[in-house]
Amino acid sequence: MFPFAAIVGQDQMKRALLLNVIDPGIGGVLIKGEKGTAKSTTVRALEQVLPPRTVIKGCPFGCDPARPERYCPYCAEKYGPGKEAPETVQVPMTVQDLPLSATEDRIAGTLDLESVLQTGKKKFEPGILASANGNILYVDEINLLEDYIVDMLLDSAAMGVNYVEREGVSFTHPARFVLVGSMNPEEGDLRPQLLDRFGMSVDVVGEKDMGERADVVSRRLEFDSDPAGFTARYADETKRIAESIANARKLLGSVKTDRKLIEAAAYLSIYFKMEGHRADITMIRSARANAAFEDRTEVTKDDLEAVAPLVLSHRLKKKPFDRTPDYDISDVHKCLQDL
Amino acid sequence: MFPFAAIVGQDQMKRALLLNVIDPGIGGVLIKGEKGTAKSTTVRALEQVLPPRTVIKGCPFGCDPARPERYCPYCAEKYGPGKEAPETVQVPMTVQDLPLSATEDRIAGTLDLESVLQTGKKKFEPGILASANGNILYVDEINLLEDYIVDMLLDSAAMGVNYVEREGVSFTHPARFVLVGSMNPEEGDLRPQLLDRFGMSVDVVGEKDMGERADVVSRRLEFDSDPAGFTARYADETKRIAESIANARKLLGSVKTDRKLIEAAAYLSIYFKMEGHRADITMIRSARANAAFEDRTEVTKDDLEAVAPLVLSHRLKKKPFDRTPDYDISDVHKCLQDL
Amino acid sequence: MFPFAAIVGQDQMKRALLLNVIDPGIGGVLIKGEKGTAKSTTVRALEQVLPPRTVIKGCPFGCDPARPERYCPYCAEKYGPGKEAPETVQVPMTVQDLPLSATEDRIAGTLDLESVLQTGKKKFEPGILASANGNILYVDEINLLEDYIVDMLLDSAAMGVNYVEREGVSFTHPARFVLVGSMNPEEGDLRPQLLDRFGMSVDVVGEKDMGERADVVSRRLEFDSDPAGFTARYADETKRIAESIANARKLLGSVKTDRKLIEAAAYLSIYFKMEGHRADITMIRSARANAAFEDRTEVTKDDLEAVAPLVLSHRLKKKPFDRTPDYDISDVHKCLQDL
Amino acid sequence: MFPFAAIVGQDQMKRALLLNVIDPGIGGVLIKGEKGTAKSTTVRALEQVLPPRTVIKGCPFGCDPARPERYCPYCAEKYGPGKEAPETVQVPMTVQDLPLSATEDRIAGTLDLESVLQTGKKKFEPGILASANGNILYVDEINLLEDYIVDMLLDSAAMGVNYVEREGVSFTHPARFVLVGSMNPEEGDLRPQLLDRFGMSVDVVGEKDMGERADVVSRRLEFDSDPAGFTARYADETKRIAESIANARKLLGSVKTDRKLIEAAAYLSIYFKMEGHRADITMIRSARANAAFEDRTEVTKDDLEAVAPLVLSHRLKKKPFDRTPDYDISDVHKCLQDL
Amino acid sequence: MFPFAAIVGQDQMKRALLLNVIDPGIGGVLIKGEKGTAKSTTVRALEQVLPPRTVIKGCPFGCDPARPERYCPYCAEKYGPGKEAPETVQVPMTVQDLPLSATEDRIAGTLDLESVLQTGKKKFEPGILASANGNILYVDEINLLEDYIVDMLLDSAAMGVNYVEREGVSFTHPARFVLVGSMNPEEGDLRPQLLDRFGMSVDVVGEKDMGERADVVSRRLEFDSDPAGFTARYADETKRIAESIANARKLLGSVKTDRKLIEAAAYLSIYFKMEGHRADITMIRSARANAAFEDRTEVTKDDLEAVAPLVLSHRLKKKPFDRTPDYDISDVHKCLQDL
Amino acid sequence: MFPFAAIVGQDQMKRALLLNVIDPGIGGVLIKGEKGTAKSTTVRALEQVLPPRTVIKGCPFGCDPARPERYCPYCAEKYGPGKEAPETVQVPMTVQDLPLSATEDRIAGTLDLESVLQTGKKKFEPGILASANGNILYVDEINLLEDYIVDMLLDSAAMGVNYVEREGVSFTHPARFVLVGSMNPEEGDLRPQLLDRFGMSVDVVGEKDMGERADVVSRRLEFDSDPAGFTARYADETKRIAESIANARKLLGSVKTDRKLIEAAAYLSIYFKMEGHRADITMIRSARANAAFEDRTEVTKDDLEAVAPLVLSHRLKKKPFDRTPDYDISDVHKCLQDL
Repeated sequence: MFPFAAIVGQDQMKRALLLNVIDPGIGGVLIKGEKGTAKSTTVRALEQVLPPRTVIKGCPFGCDPARPERYCPYCAEKYGPGKEAPETVQVPMTVQDLPLSATEDRIAGTLDLESVLQTGKKKFEPGILASANGNILYVDEINLLEDYIVDMLLDSAAMGVNYVEREGVSFTHPARFVLVGSMNPEEGDLRPQLLDRFGMSVDVVGEKDMGERADVVSRRLEFDSDPAGFTARYADETKRIAESIANARKLLGSVKTDRKLIEAAAYLSIYFKMEGHRADITMIRSARANAAFEDRTEVTKDDLEAVAPLVLSHRLKKKPFDRTPDYDISDVHKCLQDL
Repeated sequence: MFPFAAIVGQDQMKRALLLNVIDPGIGGVLIKGEKGTAKSTTVRALEQVLPPRTVIKGCPFGCDPARPERYCPYCAEKYGPGKEAPETVQVPMTVQDLPLSATEDRIAGTLDLESVLQTGKKKFEPGILASANGNILYVDEINLLEDYIVDMLLDSAAMGVNYVEREGVSFTHPARFVLVGSMNPEEGDLRPQLLDRFGMSVDVVGEKDMGERADVVSRRLEFDSDPAGFTARYADETKRIAESIANARKLLGSVKTDRKLIEAAAYLSIYFKMEGHRADITMIRSARANAAFEDRTEVTKDDLEAVAPLVLSHRLKKKPFDRTPDYDISDVHKCLQDL
Repeated sequence: MFPFAAIVGQDQMKRALLLNVIDPGIGGVLIKGEKGTAKSTTVRALEQVLPPRTVIKGCPFGCDPARPERYCPYCAEKYGPGKEAPETVQVPMTVQDLPLSATEDRIAGTLDLESVLQTGKKKFEPGILASANGNILYVDEINLLEDYIVDMLLDSAAMGVNYVEREGVSFTHPARFVLVGSMNPEEGDLRPQLLDRFGMSVDVVGEKDMGERADVVSRRLEFDSDPAGFTARYADETKRIAESIANARKLLGSVKTDRKLIEAAAYLSIYFKMEGHRADITMIRSARANAAFEDRTEVTKDDLEAVAPLVLSHRLKKKPFDRTPDYDISDVHKCLQDL
Repeated sequence: MFPFAAIVGQDQMKRALLLNVIDPGIGGVLIKGEKGTAKSTTVRALEQVLPPRTVIKGCPFGCDPARPERYCPYCAEKYGPGKEAPETVQVPMTVQDLPLSATEDRIAGTLDLESVLQTGKKKFEPGILASANGNILYVDEINLLEDYIVDMLLDSAAMGVNYVEREGVSFTHPARFVLVGSMNPEEGDLRPQLLDRFGMSVDVVGEKDMGERADVVSRRLEFDSDPAGFTARYADETKRIAESIANARKLLGSVKTDRKLIEAAAYLSIYFKMEGHRADITMIRSARANAAFEDRTEVTKDDLEAVAPLVLSHRLKKKPFDRTPDYDISDVHKCLQDL
Repeated sequence: MFPFAAIVGQDQMKRALLLNVIDPGIGGVLIKGEKGTAKSTTVRALEQVLPPRTVIKGCPFGCDPARPERYCPYCAEKYGPGKEAPETVQVPMTVQDLPLSATEDRIAGTLDLESVLQTGKKKFEPGILASANGNILYVDEINLLEDYIVDMLLDSAAMGVNYVEREGVSFTHPARFVLVGSMNPEEGDLRPQLLDRFGMSVDVVGEKDMGERADVVSRRLEFDSDPAGFTARYADETKRIAESIANARKLLGSVKTDRKLIEAAAYLSIYFKMEGHRADITMIRSARANAAFEDRTEVTKDDLEAVAPLVLSHRLKKKPFDRTPDYDISDVHKCLQDL
Repeated sequence: MFPFAAIVGQDQMKRALLLNVIDPGIGGVLIKGEKGTAKSTTVRALEQVLPPRTVIKGCPFGCDPARPERYCPYCAEKYGPGKEAPETVQVPMTVQDLPLSATEDRIAGTLDLESVLQTGKKKFEPGILASANGNILYVDEINLLEDYIVDMLLDSAAMGVNYVEREGVSFTHPARFVLVGSMNPEEGDLRPQLLDRFGMSVDVVGEKDMGERADVVSRRLEFDSDPAGFTARYADETKRIAESIANARKLLGSVKTDRKLIEAAAYLSIYFKMEGHRADITMIRSARANAAFEDRTEVTKDDLEAVAPLVLSHRLKKKPFDRTPDYDISDVHKCLQDL
């Protein structure tokens, strides 16, 4: 796997991903861009810098021992109030792929066929949403996924729960994950209502400079001919990023946000005609995560200004027919200048 | 779960929900509004203020012991005329979710696979409509549900019965519930015939005031960082609402409605060109529930004026093409002024 | 169940239903009207005034002991020529509901799964058409049913036989019933060929008078708060209607129709450009039933005039595009005046 | 069942049916006409005048003992060359209904489920085409049947064989029958290629005379109130028709056709621009059957003139758009006048 | 079955069929023509003149003992290099029908259900392509077959192999056959890419001469009334054709083709703007077969001129919209005149 | 099988195929051209010159023993770190066909039915992608394959992994192969996003010279009448090509690419407006393979110029409507002339 630290450029995409790792409550990232711009490579490489997480040993859903109110039915029965404390184990946080060809039964989980055939009893067989719990869930070409499946993913991501009621199965388990989608807008867009449910979006383009392009090619060919050596050369930088993330996650709870900044976020939402209140809340969460990532405990105007375009741009209303947004995202700076 | 009492604004939505809890005969609520306006949060939070209900112990459909004429086939056989009296139990009234991905078999119930495999005998396996009996049934994004399923839900809600005749199953059980649907009209409307079958509708919009928006953000972030503490702060207000509901349900039977007010409701229906008689009946029921909620036993003109827009607005005929209603709902006041 | 006798107005709908009960050979009723006009309530309430009927004890199809030529395969085998006489039993005639979600297998009947699983032998499992035999079959929103199912219902109703040849099943049993469909024409029409196969049709509209509307509301609310008391108040009227029906059924065989009246019916069919001869036959049958209901044994011009619009109106050719009929149904009077 | 002999008018339809019974090689009849014109009644009533036929006892396909080259696989194995002679039995020729809802497996035959479940061996379960062998196969509303099924019926009728190659089944058995279809052209036409494969077609319309209409109504009502008595009154006429048919079938082999008449048929086909040679052959066969029905052994010009319109009219090319034929069928007389 | 030798006219169709029997490598025939022109009769009658062939005894695919490199998996295992020699048997070459209703599983072969049920082991159950191996495969109305099935047939015919990879089955067996399709162009065309893959095509029309038409009718009626006698009358001619075919097949390997004629074929392809090289190769093969059929061992210009239209006409590019070819096939003569 | 070495002309197609065999990382070839141009013949013939490869003995996925990080689950368990070393075996590299009718389960693999039936346990049954691992995967008429299957193939080819999550199966195994597709653009194109994912493309046309055409025909007929002799005549040339490939594969790791050439590739990508960086990387890889095939260890400008059109042409943006590319591929020479 190509080293995250060796990826040339693409700073917005990297920042959006890292902030979501620091605060999964931000609500995921949608990465849009032409083909061949290392979108998948970057998301998959993220795994190298993810912090470990603590789960209940043996639980097929990786229940978090610290949140009994979110236990799956099995953990709830075994470790519920007044019962024994669960044994725990540290596991790496991972990037879980969701292939386009995945069927609904494999995503949401389904009847366990073996169990039915062998015992005549119905049992739930966990799907991809079970593996995704506590991790990153990555969907390449998310715009080619059927709308109802994207909807299902976004619902689970938002509620933190996978609630299955289909074809003879009725089951509920925790499914808290960061949803990352990538897509090439030339192949068709997501419908606006889905767009809005991603916490952030970024647009990526290929490098236009001949020298930087040559760097991209060179690093790729170097990596392909000697993966181990190439990776070793970036080991220190990789470690540095992983530590920043771990530190930011610890710091996050103590980051303070001034009321004035919350009102500024509300002002941005009103200025850019955001629907509802999701954009306001997400901007503040993202600004806090940004502060934590930069090792601070106070959110600043710069944090807000840095994250606002990531949160707002995919939520801008489009003009009918020409599909360009009604507003210019660069007005963010102007809106905040008097703060 | 976010405290119902801490939700900022949205008074119409809250009132419509509460009146339906007081008199489920009103016929449900359809909540329409842009995304991010706490529609789902509010409906799910309603559970905190719902009154308890008495059911027959062990019955999978939660049969009401006081209504033998509505017993399910199992209760009818065990506790029918001349047989033993059923043992009863108090359970909380709940908000039952219906996920979009729910299949018809899981909603209406189906063949019990285990039973077939183990005994070769057909048995009915209860679905979501069974769990919904006596409760609130909530469908988020109800406009994305296929029409025939919405139809099925509205039929059950209206008749109080789930009548299954499909794929080898023939079964009937009580299914009385308050149907609450929420939707974003930008994603497509319900067809007019379905609209009409909801007792009430409300339109919700995001707050437009920067200060109130900041309140929404602050409360949300406060809740997220300390759910228990935040909830405790609103405990008294929550208790007060719950008691008002319980009191109103007791009072409802004794609320009187003057013939003049019934004729006024009929006049409103004629003025606004309502089809059939459902609007008249629902306005009177809603006005009674409103009186009871305000601890009165006499319906007043104000009760009628308060509930009429909730009952009438989604039933107004639309002009062709421009989709604006033919009538102005604010005429309600004018219509009633001489009463 | 709301008392049939307490329904405000709607005389045409009531008469069409009653005449079909008196002579099921009339061929069913299609009730068209806007929502909320008590169509379903009226049809279901009909059950209160239906006469009892005699069936062969234990027969799943309710075979009529007096018509051996129509016995189901089981009765034919047990009680056929030269075998023992069947034991009989009196049962109430009922209104059998056919829910929109009913699948073809449950309507027509299907393979008996239990039997296959337990014995490896194929057996027929009766469906709704079996229960409908000898009764009223009611389909609300019949225009939303798929055409091929309506076709199947009309075929069975016309031939008095349910003939199943599908997916491994080959079975035939009696299925004589009065088909009653209700629909809201705004939700789409039936295709003309189906229309024609209903014996009669009626159009219902909401009351337009404020006082009558208030009566509708009042009776409904009275019934809802005290069903037993309300029903008791209408018991005498209910009994009177039931007796009229029973009397008319006995009288029907002896009602005489003058050749002049048969020619008048033929004249009406020619005048209104009816296709084929069904309308003529149905008008005469309906006029006879009407005479019997009014306790007479001679058909009069008034009988014919009363029933002709019910039989003719849905069979009128429509002008292309504006969907208004080519002829004015009120010409019936003019056509008959010289008789 | 209404007596064939009591049907008022409709001479062309009756003749077409009778000629096909006399020579099944004519290729079936397509009856077109508005609703309510006794199309179905007439076809089903035909059963009363059909001659008996001799079949091999116990054969599920009713194999004709006189045609060993057409034996089904079972008969071929049991009674093939050098084996015992089959035991035979006389059975009535019948009108076999094919309901619209019939599925392909039930029409063509399918795997025998019981056999598979009980013995694990595949066996063919005969379908409607098996019952149709040697009989009349009647499809009401044949234009509503899916094209591929009509195709299948016409193929079997033409080849006299049902050849099944689908979903695990490979089986062949004799399926020689007269295909009779009826339809209302308002509900959509058959595609021209299917039309052509029917030997004959007739157009039926309702009676336009008030007196005759009244006769239709009177006979129907008479029959309905006393089926046995009514049928008895027509018994002699029924017997006469049946005997004519039986006689004609015996005579058919000895009917001679002059070369001049064959050339006249060819001339008609060329004049009316028939495609291929089917029309010529069918006209000669039909003329021979007509002669036999009229108890003659020489085909005359009148025979040809009588049957030509039945054979030609549905094969006339239509003008594009206005759907009227290019030629006038009444030219038949002109074409034949110099013969 | 009607004698091949008694078919009136239709010389091109007969020649195309016979040349393909002589050299199956020509690639099949597509017969186009209006209905009723004896297309099917001719193809099926071909069976009477087909030569016998030698196959491995007991092989379900009829493997050719002389071509071990094409053995099916069973033969390959039993008679592979170093094993015993296969026992052989002579069987008649046949015309295998492929009915339109044939499903993909029955055409390509599928899982053997009996074997799975009885032994739990998967086994391949041969389909129509297995029976077609070494024979003629005939599809009437081939234009009504779904494109992907025609594609499958043409693939198998071209590669001589049936390669199944579907629904749990993976199997390969020899499937060398002459594909003959017939169709009525009025019912829709084949797409151009399929056309091109047929080696030859012919257009047939009905006879336009009254006398010849009368001959067609007379012969048909004669055959129908006395099949055996009629067939006997054509026995000598039938034998003569069969012997010519057998002789031509033996001669084929020794037929020489001058380089000048190969270049002439290439010139025709270039002149008529053929795509790729298939037309050139097929013309030379066809010319060789023609020479052999006429008992010669040297291909002449006349052979090429005789077969070129059969090979070229369906491959001519069509003008857009008017669907007439860009070139006139009669230019063949002009192109070859200087040879 | 026709000898690769005997194919007349078609140099670009042959070179593209050979370079991909030398470096499978190039990413496959798409061959476009009119029918009958030996596309399939050439690809299948490639097998004669493919080098052998070393795999783990008995592994159903042909795991490469030298790459433990890519072991399939079975090999990973048996030969993982600290366990025994795998036994290895040399097998020929093959061209694996993927028939159009292949179903998704047979391509990706599926549940092993036998195992489920016999043991009640789920087991993965390998599909075509398993057989393709380490080989060439060839899809003829790839444009007729459904888009989602092409997508699946390209995903597997790119990631080197087959990741199955569907209908009860969850399994991952190595699937590294060279994807070769051929198609006739007249039958419809691939969507641009799929085009881009092929490493190279070539356009083939039929020979236009009469003499060369005659050669094509002659060689084909020679081969058909004496396959063994014909093949023997080309044996030396075949061996020479095979050795060049084997040599190039060994040399590939040591081929050097000057930074100037990498920048030249980047310049070409910028000049031709390539999206992302795939084209740059693929040009450099292809140039290296070309150098190795010509037995050199230094990439030259000529290598780049030779491969650039193969890599760039299918990635050129098309003008809307006229479908001709925006740029002229012959500008490659101009772009590189100053190098």
